[in-house]
Amino acid sequence: MAKQQLHIVKIGGNIINDEVALGSFLKDFSALEGPKLLVHGGGKRANEISEAMGLQPKMIAGRRVTDEATLEVVTMVYAGLLNKKITAQLQKLNCNALGLSGADANCILAHKRIVVEVDYGFAGDVDAINAEFIKVLLENKVTPVFCAITHDKNGQLLNTNADTIASEIAIAMSDFYEVALNYVFELKGVLENIADKNSVIPHINLKKYEQLIEDGIISEGMIPKLHNCFNALKRGVQKVNIGDASLIKNTNNLYTELSIK
Amino acid sequence: MAKQQLHIVKIGGNIINDEVALGSFLKDFSALEGPKLLVHGGGKRANEISEAMGLQPKMIAGRRVTDEATLEVVTMVYAGLLNKKITAQLQKLNCNALGLSGADANCILAHKRIVVEVDYGFAGDVDAINAEFIKVLLENKVTPVFCAITHDKNGQLLNTNADTIASEIAIAMSDFYEVALNYVFELKGVLENIADKNSVIPHINLKKYEQLIEDGIISEGMIPKLHNCFNALKRGVQKVNIGDASLIKNTNNLYTELSIK
Repeated sequence: MAKQQLHIVKIGGNIINDEVALGSFLKDFSALEGPKLLVHGGGKRANEISEAMGLQPKMIAGRRVTDEATLEVVTMVYAGLLNKKITAQLQKLNCNALGLSGADANCILAHKRIVVEVDYGFAGDVDAINAEFIKVLLENKVTPVFCAITHDKNGQLLNTNADTIASEIAIAMSDFYEVALNYVFELKGVLENIADKNSVIPHINLKKYEQLIEDGIISEGMIPKLHNCFNALKRGVQKVNIGDASLIKNTNNLYTELSIK
Repeated sequence: MAKQQLHIVKIGGNIINDEVALGSFLKDFSALEGPKLLVHGGGKRANEISEAMGLQPKMIAGRRVTDEATLEVVTMVYAGLLNKKITAQLQKLNCNALGLSGADANCILAHKRIVVEVDYGFAGDVDAINAEFIKVLLENKVTPVFCAITHDKNGQLLNTNADTIASEIAIAMSDFYEVALNYVFELKGVLENIADKNSVIPHINLKKYEQLIEDGIISEGMIPKLHNCFNALKRGVQKVNIGDASLIKNTNNLYTELSIK
């Protein structure tokens, strides 16, 4: 029997920061048919609240350093404020959302990142996904909504990259479903020319990906994002696309599709 | 066939505020055999964070007035920080906890309290419990951990009394289980004499309850708490006890047991 399709969508800070954009996205998301799952990143609210509380966000090479006070703030903002607001809005749209962190039902087991050159503090690297339980939720018509907080099953919560969480969940769920993984971000796709927002590369395979890195067209933040995409494809995920919020609309025809071959 | 027993335990701010007491309680809670469910209140962390953010907690007659900024703080602190910390700690203790607000899977539907004399702002009164879904979780060996945030299924989160949530969940679950509802608070039970912490009234039935109110022995905060207890007993909950953290230990023999007759 053919596997059923599962839509996994990851949204980043640019949508979360904009109430109108978020509302519009959630409407489109709730309209997706069949089983679906959402992963959301953080957004600027964590920084605002950190600052209001007198903490200074620490970043090294574009990544947040999570000290104990910062971990409290991101746990509050990601798992509390954002996750529950998104869940309540999806419930209004008759999408039976359930907000989760990785600690909940041991959905995402991680370990504290090992210090090599940089100490990222309470940053988590994913070890395992509780795919069986996520399947139970999906079979009960529940839409899991994950924030980017995980745990180590030793009582420690950990701040984790949301792109990686989406990719790891997609890989784990591909045992049971044909998974379509969609990364929604601020651009229409991977761009040929960063100055031209419409210069979307419609299709990138593994060979082209390596060429694009070599040519300097893909750089910085796009490298880990695309690394997550190809990791998912290599490990059983059926489809991976990158684009803006219109990605999950049937009418959209400008986005980047990724494939191994 | 006899119904299986379900333990529902509600803990309040006094335990949540004390890391050692919370750790000790969670160890006892995780040792309870069979299906179980935890409801937790808020504690002083919400006030501390409100103050750090320059908000002044507003109270009328001992109840928090929830304006929009306060709702954000309690959503962050209750559903985010406290709920996920408790969940991660239970996971460490091999209790497969899953933290929930009322918005998650539409577990607790509420409406914004109607303004009569006092406007409590975004305070929620409970309308319905999604007992079928909570049963799915319990049957999958998951322990639900509820914070006191609900929603109106119209996108609005609401701050709700945790005692009432525990009582409403207990009532709804009594369709499927023999429910034992335990209210854990700072005292050993309902006291005959507030100055003597050991003057626990071991047993209160409905008639005695009315007498105790008339005599002024039960007053203020204890009245709504006991009202929730008797409401639960009237509507199908098997056992209701009130006591301190030792309540859920088999060795405890000082607490208040409530009954209709």
